[in-house]
Amino acid sequence: MTYTAAEKILKAHHREGDFLKGKEIGITIDQTLTQDATGTMVYLQYEAMNIPRVKTELSVSYVDHNTLQNDYRNMDDHRFLQSAAAKFGIYFSRPGNGICHQVHLERFGRPGKTLLGSDSHTPTGGGLGMIAIGAGGLDVAVAMAGAPFYLTYPKIIGVKLTGKLGRMCSAKDVILTVLKLETVKGGVGKIYEYFGPGVKSLTVPERATITNMGAELGATTSLFPSDEVTKAFLELQGRGNQWEEVKADEGAVYDKIIEIDLSKVEPMAACPHMPDIVVPVSELAGKPLQQVAIGSCTNSSLDDLGVAADILAGKTIAQGVSLGISPGSKQTLSAAMKNGIIEKLVDAGARILESACGPCIGMGFAPSSGGVSLRTFNRNFKGRSGTADAQVYLVSPETAAASALMGAITDPRDIKGVERKDYLAYTEIKDNMIIPPFDEKEAAKVEIVRGPNIKPCPTAKAVADNLTANVLLKTEDNITTDHIMPAGSKILPLRSNIPEISKHVFEAVDPDFPQKALAAGEGIIIGGENYGQGSSREHAALAPMYLGIKAVIVKSFARIHKANLINFGILPLTFSDPADYDKLEEGVSLSFGNLPDQLKAGREVTATLVGGSGDGTSMVFLHDMEERLLSVVLAGGLLNFTRQSSGQ
Amino acid sequence: MTYTAAEKILKAHHREGDFLKGKEIGITIDQTLTQDATGTMVYLQYEAMNIPRVKTELSVSYVDHNTLQNDYRNMDDHRFLQSAAAKFGIYFSRPGNGICHQVHLERFGRPGKTLLGSDSHTPTGGGLGMIAIGAGGLDVAVAMAGAPFYLTYPKIIGVKLTGKLGRMCSAKDVILTVLKLETVKGGVGKIYEYFGPGVKSLTVPERATITNMGAELGATTSLFPSDEVTKAFLELQGRGNQWEEVKADEGAVYDKIIEIDLSKVEPMAACPHMPDIVVPVSELAGKPLQQVAIGSCTNSSLDDLGVAADILAGKTIAQGVSLGISPGSKQTLSAAMKNGIIEKLVDAGARILESACGPCIGMGFAPSSGGVSLRTFNRNFKGRSGTADAQVYLVSPETAAASALMGAITDPRDIKGVERKDYLAYTEIKDNMIIPPFDEKEAAKVEIVRGPNIKPCPTAKAVADNLTANVLLKTEDNITTDHIMPAGSKILPLRSNIPEISKHVFEAVDPDFPQKALAAGEGIIIGGENYGQGSSREHAALAPMYLGIKAVIVKSFARIHKANLINFGILPLTFSDPADYDKLEEGVSLSFGNLPDQLKAGREVTATLVGGSGDGTSMVFLHDMEERLLSVVLAGGLLNFTRQSSGQ
Repeated sequence: MTYTAAEKILKAHHREGDFLKGKEIGITIDQTLTQDATGTMVYLQYEAMNIPRVKTELSVSYVDHNTLQNDYRNMDDHRFLQSAAAKFGIYFSRPGNGICHQVHLERFGRPGKTLLGSDSHTPTGGGLGMIAIGAGGLDVAVAMAGAPFYLTYPKIIGVKLTGKLGRMCSAKDVILTVLKLETVKGGVGKIYEYFGPGVKSLTVPERATITNMGAELGATTSLFPSDEVTKAFLELQGRGNQWEEVKADEGAVYDKIIEIDLSKVEPMAACPHMPDIVVPVSELAGKPLQQVAIGSCTNSSLDDLGVAADILAGKTIAQGVSLGISPGSKQTLSAAMKNGIIEKLVDAGARILESACGPCIGMGFAPSSGGVSLRTFNRNFKGRSGTADAQVYLVSPETAAASALMGAITDPRDIKGVERKDYLAYTEIKDNMIIPPFDEKEAAKVEIVRGPNIKPCPTAKAVADNLTANVLLKTEDNITTDHIMPAGSKILPLRSNIPEISKHVFEAVDPDFPQKALAAGEGIIIGGENYGQGSSREHAALAPMYLGIKAVIVKSFARIHKANLINFGILPLTFSDPADYDKLEEGVSLSFGNLPDQLKAGREVTATLVGGSGDGTSMVFLHDMEERLLSVVLAGGLLNFTRQSSGQ
Repeated sequence: MTYTAAEKILKAHHREGDFLKGKEIGITIDQTLTQDATGTMVYLQYEAMNIPRVKTELSVSYVDHNTLQNDYRNMDDHRFLQSAAAKFGIYFSRPGNGICHQVHLERFGRPGKTLLGSDSHTPTGGGLGMIAIGAGGLDVAVAMAGAPFYLTYPKIIGVKLTGKLGRMCSAKDVILTVLKLETVKGGVGKIYEYFGPGVKSLTVPERATITNMGAELGATTSLFPSDEVTKAFLELQGRGNQWEEVKADEGAVYDKIIEIDLSKVEPMAACPHMPDIVVPVSELAGKPLQQVAIGSCTNSSLDDLGVAADILAGKTIAQGVSLGISPGSKQTLSAAMKNGIIEKLVDAGARILESACGPCIGMGFAPSSGGVSLRTFNRNFKGRSGTADAQVYLVSPETAAASALMGAITDPRDIKGVERKDYLAYTEIKDNMIIPPFDEKEAAKVEIVRGPNIKPCPTAKAVADNLTANVLLKTEDNITTDHIMPAGSKILPLRSNIPEISKHVFEAVDPDFPQKALAAGEGIIIGGENYGQGSSREHAALAPMYLGIKAVIVKSFARIHKANLINFGILPLTFSDPADYDKLEEGVSLSFGNLPDQLKAGREVTATLVGGSGDGTSMVFLHDMEERLLSVVLAGGLLNFTRQSSGQ
């Protein structure tokens, strides 16, 4: 039996279920990461499980989302997280130390290991040859408790790279090219595994740009082999001893192969408002813009900042443009200062923002009304920037810097005499803002610090025998977790407080939704294709659960969101007949009898329509939950299930 | 006749009124500055006056307050300001270029000139030997139109400096010492003029720290002489040709002299929640803290950042502490990177915030609940940090850095082997983010860019013959403009939109006030001593005017706020019998007959109390408005008055 690189890592970590394509498997998780916006809830959940010390090889708690600190809430969260890390044996990356994915890549990621993170861009680690998966926070809490992580054995898509990138063409353009081919739902249930002779021409941060934004395909994760380039990167990070080779077996079989000739990749841009609306930058050239942002977990390595700096060196950004830089990590910022990168950027007029997610998650630097903003980020969902009518394009650092200079979208190949250089060699290790785990004796003395905005995690009730509930909302295709549970600087600070944050569920879609739902007591949401794409935020399940949502019925789900719904005791159902979508309007009800029995009996669930033109007719919905997930959802979610399983 | 330095500058600019102590004089304004939070309204008002081009020698529009950009509003304001500057012949300092006072000191301030700024810390310029006064935005608009600025010929307090500061004692400790002596209302109607042999031991940025925070005395302004030190500073800035000597005449007479022996000044801290609750740092030593912030217009020169960096060099800040740095200007940031200052700070764990006001005006970096925060800023009013129950102490950069290192308040003299160095020598001029005024031809082509949050400036009606209005609110002593019109990251973005921002008037004092006032149509506010201290924000008058406030009756006023009330057509009255304060409760009314005639007839205004225990009794209130101000208030404010005067 031959395996691909991804399959080999999965096999080495396989712990439960049949190791067969399409089957649910449980894998051992070596490492976990959390960021603060999801992390507070993760540690509240972990705490509720009553397990004194994490059982992973390594767990890290980062602070990178809620760093604006408009009021006490953000810093209260930071202090809670720091104390929880100390208590439970977790590394703590202090505010200012950088974006979780960038820091994890630099300081902790290891080839051949598994990483589960409560952030959808956790696959960044795939650039190092590890299986790095984004999941709901509760999954991460459970993994820290030593339980396996369950996933459907994914399809493996081989992406064969040949050739070498041309001048001013970059890894970002590669992943944008893949997104153009595969679309934002093309990757559901799949791992994208890169291979071929082109791989060795890409640095680890370039690979990480590609695996990071693989999240936008809806993929389980993306993976590069671990090779000599990986080894050199780890050596620069003082971790050469952690290297191991990861590669596919000779003759390994991929479910599909995509071939990309890197020499033919050209500068690309994802247009408003989806990461897969991708066109060559040359087609947009000349479009005036108001703002440029460089950085985020997708594109803020030393080389990324370096090439932007070299494009701007000795010049001044166009008069109508504001340029913001979010360095990926303190270590990167420090090295970028040492070799003059930051100075060149500041001298050209750039505003240096914090080493944090910042504008990528709508934490400041919002564009002007209707403003055109070019960003080296990974998502351009409508309104995510903080400005509802902004036009956000996703591009490479090269395209971003060239466009900031010219005041209009510019093909970076038009800037002569500059090319990407190897700035990674300037890496200097700086771990002094990472607090290592406390030993057990020290940990015992730690009191967890809880500000007034930090409230316990609510749980659902077990699924009732009979359910009759109103359709409270009917949505379109491609609803993102940003639609369901908005983020941004006003709402993210409420992540530790479910009663408060749930007042903002579906805010931009139907601002009355939370009130209606609370008034109804129980409710159902109807959706189209790819419901719940985007970030891993479990609040998009947790807050609707708090509001009384019992089932979400859609044409298709995004992977992480479906898992989150189950984790919080909400039934994820799909239409057996997609035409039923048209019959379900807001206001009608669905009545399910003997619901647990129906769910256990097979993949079909029948309900009776109450009200509307089809009053009294039957409808059949589908679920694909195997026994374990079914037990979880029936128990009212994973926290209840885990507590019951462990007899607590 | 001999004059002090301040008097000599006033005399040289004297244009109207008798040049006699205590009399109102009109002076010519050479330079103006605005920042964005007050500036949008300034340029809307200027535009309403229909004067194509500013008549000052130099006017500069800065962006430093609203730089978080939580939504479209901030950047819309920036674009409005940039286009207005281009239209009206004004320098525009782009977002990221730094804090108005720091940049103005570096690039524009000139000895012997007058500067009027729509920010209360405009007196920073006094460090260069200029008369720099903070005023309401409308005053600045009118000054740009070429009109004189009116003020009462102030008392001149001489502050005689002898000796030289000891190691780790700083200019901040000098002004804190003055505040301890003089209190936050000690400076009303006064200019603090520094002189004596100690002056020459202080650099221009050190002098500017002192004059900047002179604003907290309630003073008209503060002033240092212009000497060889000033000349050297201007030469570093490439402006040696703009230097002129400014000093008091031999034998000049001060109204009072305070003597400070610099060698006896020790590290001081202003305790929560007033800048004049000052104690030696040694008395607070050992108090644990959660946060330290270095920067702001008070303390972010190269030397300030440099000494902090030297204290922290090679070390790491204490585990429980978060340290933020707000560099004063892009030029300072750039030089501080070039000579390793920023690198040392980042390496020690500091978070580099934008070159902007930032946390000083509650724009991010809010402390944790009840958190102790040491800040090198100039104000520690309750809640201003963004966290209502935070405990904010104002200290020098030396004390701040030493305390960040130790995790508790620390006397910086306990840190051995470090002292303040001359980093100013590293100054490099960087003006590329300052857009010079457009010429008339270019200006004619400019369209002012107006986002949806930018609304015209409302105006009051002329004072009616008879006024009967309810007391809508009764407040205590020392009400600040932060109480009246809160700032912070949620409210500042509304500065261009009076109907919206007025919903937040007195939010922390009485959240129902705006609704009550709008419902009442007309109303009166009662206050104690030093009403309206703090920032220069005219919104603290403009928004109450919009809500229907007709008179504010208090025991005493802060200077700028009283001027703002007049500018917006609200009567500023004081009690003839302070005991009447106790008789006026919320709910009673005051009835004024023949109000314009009463105001014109003298300094007394009689009203009848309606309701309450004193129903039907008469009360006498006082005003001190001379003819010109009376005409302004009677017209319903300065905009109406200016329009009427110019026949528009």
